[in-house]
Amino acid sequence: MKVAFLGLGKMGLGMAGNLLKAGHQVTVWNRTQSRGADLARSGAKLAGTPAEAARDAEVAFTMLADDPAAREVVFGQDGVLEALPRGAVHVSSSTISVQLSDEMEQEHNAHAQKYISAPVFGRPEAAAAAKLFIVAAGEADIIKYCDPLLSVLGQRTFVLGDKPSMANVVKLSGNFLIATIVESFGEAIALIRKYGVDPHQYLEMLTSSLFTAPVHKTYGGLIVDQKFEPAGFMLKLGLKDTRLVLQAGDAVNAPLPIASVIRDHFLEAMADGMAEKDWSSLSLVAARNAGLK
Amino acid sequence: MKVAFLGLGKMGLGMAGNLLKAGHQVTVWNRTQSRGADLARSGAKLAGTPAEAARDAEVAFTMLADDPAAREVVFGQDGVLEALPRGAVHVSSSTISVQLSDEMEQEHNAHAQKYISAPVFGRPEAAAAAKLFIVAAGEADIIKYCDPLLSVLGQRTFVLGDKPSMANVVKLSGNFLIATIVESFGEAIALIRKYGVDPHQYLEMLTSSLFTAPVHKTYGGLIVDQKFEPAGFMLKLGLKDTRLVLQAGDAVNAPLPIASVIRDHFLEAMADGMAEKDWSSLSLVAARNAGLK
Amino acid sequence: MKVAFLGLGKMGLGMAGNLLKAGHQVTVWNRTQSRGADLARSGAKLAGTPAEAARDAEVAFTMLADDPAAREVVFGQDGVLEALPRGAVHVSSSTISVQLSDEMEQEHNAHAQKYISAPVFGRPEAAAAAKLFIVAAGEADIIKYCDPLLSVLGQRTFVLGDKPSMANVVKLSGNFLIATIVESFGEAIALIRKYGVDPHQYLEMLTSSLFTAPVHKTYGGLIVDQKFEPAGFMLKLGLKDTRLVLQAGDAVNAPLPIASVIRDHFLEAMADGMAEKDWSSLSLVAARNAGLK
Amino acid sequence: MKVAFLGLGKMGLGMAGNLLKAGHQVTVWNRTQSRGADLARSGAKLAGTPAEAARDAEVAFTMLADDPAAREVVFGQDGVLEALPRGAVHVSSSTISVQLSDEMEQEHNAHAQKYISAPVFGRPEAAAAAKLFIVAAGEADIIKYCDPLLSVLGQRTFVLGDKPSMANVVKLSGNFLIATIVESFGEAIALIRKYGVDPHQYLEMLTSSLFTAPVHKTYGGLIVDQKFEPAGFMLKLGLKDTRLVLQAGDAVNAPLPIASVIRDHFLEAMADGMAEKDWSSLSLVAARNAGLK
Repeated sequence: MKVAFLGLGKMGLGMAGNLLKAGHQVTVWNRTQSRGADLARSGAKLAGTPAEAARDAEVAFTMLADDPAAREVVFGQDGVLEALPRGAVHVSSSTISVQLSDEMEQEHNAHAQKYISAPVFGRPEAAAAAKLFIVAAGEADIIKYCDPLLSVLGQRTFVLGDKPSMANVVKLSGNFLIATIVESFGEAIALIRKYGVDPHQYLEMLTSSLFTAPVHKTYGGLIVDQKFEPAGFMLKLGLKDTRLVLQAGDAVNAPLPIASVIRDHFLEAMADGMAEKDWSSLSLVAARNAGLK
Repeated sequence: MKVAFLGLGKMGLGMAGNLLKAGHQVTVWNRTQSRGADLARSGAKLAGTPAEAARDAEVAFTMLADDPAAREVVFGQDGVLEALPRGAVHVSSSTISVQLSDEMEQEHNAHAQKYISAPVFGRPEAAAAAKLFIVAAGEADIIKYCDPLLSVLGQRTFVLGDKPSMANVVKLSGNFLIATIVESFGEAIALIRKYGVDPHQYLEMLTSSLFTAPVHKTYGGLIVDQKFEPAGFMLKLGLKDTRLVLQAGDAVNAPLPIASVIRDHFLEAMADGMAEKDWSSLSLVAARNAGLK
Repeated sequence: MKVAFLGLGKMGLGMAGNLLKAGHQVTVWNRTQSRGADLARSGAKLAGTPAEAARDAEVAFTMLADDPAAREVVFGQDGVLEALPRGAVHVSSSTISVQLSDEMEQEHNAHAQKYISAPVFGRPEAAAAAKLFIVAAGEADIIKYCDPLLSVLGQRTFVLGDKPSMANVVKLSGNFLIATIVESFGEAIALIRKYGVDPHQYLEMLTSSLFTAPVHKTYGGLIVDQKFEPAGFMLKLGLKDTRLVLQAGDAVNAPLPIASVIRDHFLEAMADGMAEKDWSSLSLVAARNAGLK
Repeated sequence: MKVAFLGLGKMGLGMAGNLLKAGHQVTVWNRTQSRGADLARSGAKLAGTPAEAARDAEVAFTMLADDPAAREVVFGQDGVLEALPRGAVHVSSSTISVQLSDEMEQEHNAHAQKYISAPVFGRPEAAAAAKLFIVAAGEADIIKYCDPLLSVLGQRTFVLGDKPSMANVVKLSGNFLIATIVESFGEAIALIRKYGVDPHQYLEMLTSSLFTAPVHKTYGGLIVDQKFEPAGFMLKLGLKDTRLVLQAGDAVNAPLPIASVIRDHFLEAMADGMAEKDWSSLSLVAARNAGLK
């Protein structure tokens, strides 16, 4: 298929590469164009603007850092919206707000284009290895139409609703659950450290018994090793996603008190200069508040 | 070995049975003596008081519901403390407070007896199947001495410190982490329900991707099925353990804000009449607060 | 002076009336024009658009319900920005976000107009009686220039900074402190009710001893009388202001955990259908959560 | 009347002095006997034990630091309980737990003695000046019988229930409301400081407009002056009272989420070495968490 891929960050680069390897015709765009050099050598076309990338696409993926970036690329001048052909599909894989996803749905409908939301779970290594988990929502036949592409990007696609923004809520709630693990492990580890228990032995016990999920091992390991650089996912982005899930809750009157605690602790971490560290450094707030170094 | 086992609740019954099957001489005691009838038929002796059970024991296990029960059985009239032979070991497997565990250590030392703490993770089925995870702390050679017994009770023993109460902190912190999963899944599921996402599909996605631990599947399943009776572990006991972990944090100036939120929600659930339901019904508080039925 | 007054809600009506009584030439505008009929009979001019009102003004006040309304009236078509004469002053008295206030400062500067922020504390009765407390920020000489107007509106003007949005932060923080009184009184009263203490006697004790401020008497009275209709200030507006203070904290990495608790309880109240009740009905959440009717 | 007064701390000393001045026969006891020297010179008798003080008393007041101290003085060897004459009254003015107050009621009844609870609001200066506010609960005729004494100690007595421990709940809830002011002012002041607003001007505005109660002025002043030594009331005692109010809530299933936040912040302050500072130093936690010095 003719695919446009917009946004070549840590995640997008691997995803676009996988589409290319699978034999699709891929045109890529990135704000800093040089990010696409390797892909170009492998056969991708480089576009100078989002519009140029989207012009001939059957499917255009966006994978951008946040709402303002996604808004600019889709709705801005030389953006996707004005260039994407009638009947072509925009697949939004960015972690964006429910509200922006709803706006996109509305605008694409108004332009006789199609839109689904398909954010992903997984860190950059998983993106490169096509091991992402994809959460898709939108009209069933559009998702089905995109399936050959989605199946190239991830190990499994979960379809969770017929309205695109349902996938965004699900993605945001998933990041909230991960942040909860970081926060609660941070609190528990601060506690047991104050009693003289060894944090590595403690984590070994947890992850060999009841807490055996990848998220427990990955984040637990980062916390007890205090290995917060280089950042796999920056703390300031974790704060951004926590804001978005709280906003999603606010919009439907669903309080999320655990997310409120996490947001406040992210702000403490920001005030302490940790914006660019891995978001697992949130655990340092619990340690500091308990008087630990 | 000559073993006393005190406390034949849902957990203790299976544990005592496994000691018996392994060929040990087991004397059991329970407040309601009839709970020991099956064990007696399999060869256990029934004791009329904790003291009677402990009198000839090399190792005496206690597995009781809470601090008051454990305190009564150990320190009360005809209790373990006054009867256990010099040099014999008390293994406390109950989920009790750090403070009570410290008192036990002190009193057993004063009586020239030995004491280790060895609480367990696992539900009654795991106790019956000898699949518990055991968290032990105390002097290394005492734990080693008890190892033939512990290895009969669980699938693995983790040694986490040389002071007995360290195991109690670890156990309480583990229960806190489980409660956090219940609370955060409760909040996340309330959120996605308000957006029309199907909770069963949502849980399927979570537990097939990043949240694959047994705790996720067990508690997630109970929450989406709203299956809170019969209780595997009663909500009022979950509240009790949350109080104990907060108290453990308080004693060393380690704030646990997530545990504070959970405690407050347990109280809401209690006020709503859910004391005897499974503690996963904590999730109903998040649902109710979001305006869901 | 030639004054424009935009926004004739419960607060604005009284304020505009006081400017008129003081002998100023007042042109008023309101979305629903009929709200200005009484003022017109007393000598005010009615304008058909914000621009029309602002065109000849030396000072233009805005007193609007929220950010979207203020944004529309100031930046929208036929708005204040495009019509206000060079050198004239826009006094923003609305409770708006720090961010919007900063935008207004920037735009007015770019248009060679002047801008100060002067939000007010007080309920509609205080506005009518010229008993408001005014919190002003901006360039000192502009505030001084407006003083003859401000002194007609309130009993006292506090100048709290040279950047306009500082007044907005102060106003939002003040509303946060009021909401905290409502929430904490709500929790305390739920508690003592469960012990059988009479809430009226309890409040009498509090407000006759240590808690003697008007806010204690006003809100305490509403809570114990459970008199939430008609709303002096609607709960949904209290939620809006709580969002804004959290946003102000977020922008400078200042966590406000009490505001987070309050926000979550406002959402519970919203989910329970109390959006249009007086914001003191926030106290019903604490009562409900404690199992009280 | 023949009065015993047990506990000559900062508060008790002034109270006992006022009873003496009013012409009552006062026998005092204090753990450190020398604290009573001045009172003895003014005519008080010094007792060597609580029992000795209580032996001939018609009314025995206790004013002690916490539950353990009160428990020891009342129930311990040579304590009040064993010595107070049949029909004589024990007036407990200490800030103690609801549970201990209930135990006292029960034990005094069992000994044919009488018991009321009459904790006080006010700092040491108010105790010395007989300006305390007294919150009394118990049988109406006993309170009436003690009125000549109570009226000598405070400016007003509020009778809030017929069960003694109702006064303890009310006292604890009052301290919770004061702590809430400290916490919320701390958060608000941290916020406005980050925006460059002067905290003294800010406080002046608050306390001249809506927040005019003595508690606002006293605690607001301590916070903006950062004057935390010498302690009028130590932070560790503020934590103790917060624990007690949470415990009172727990006992009747009344969650107090604001108190939970405050407790967690008290623990942060304790971990930071502020146990002996004035409890208004709780505000430093909000400042620190916002990245302020």
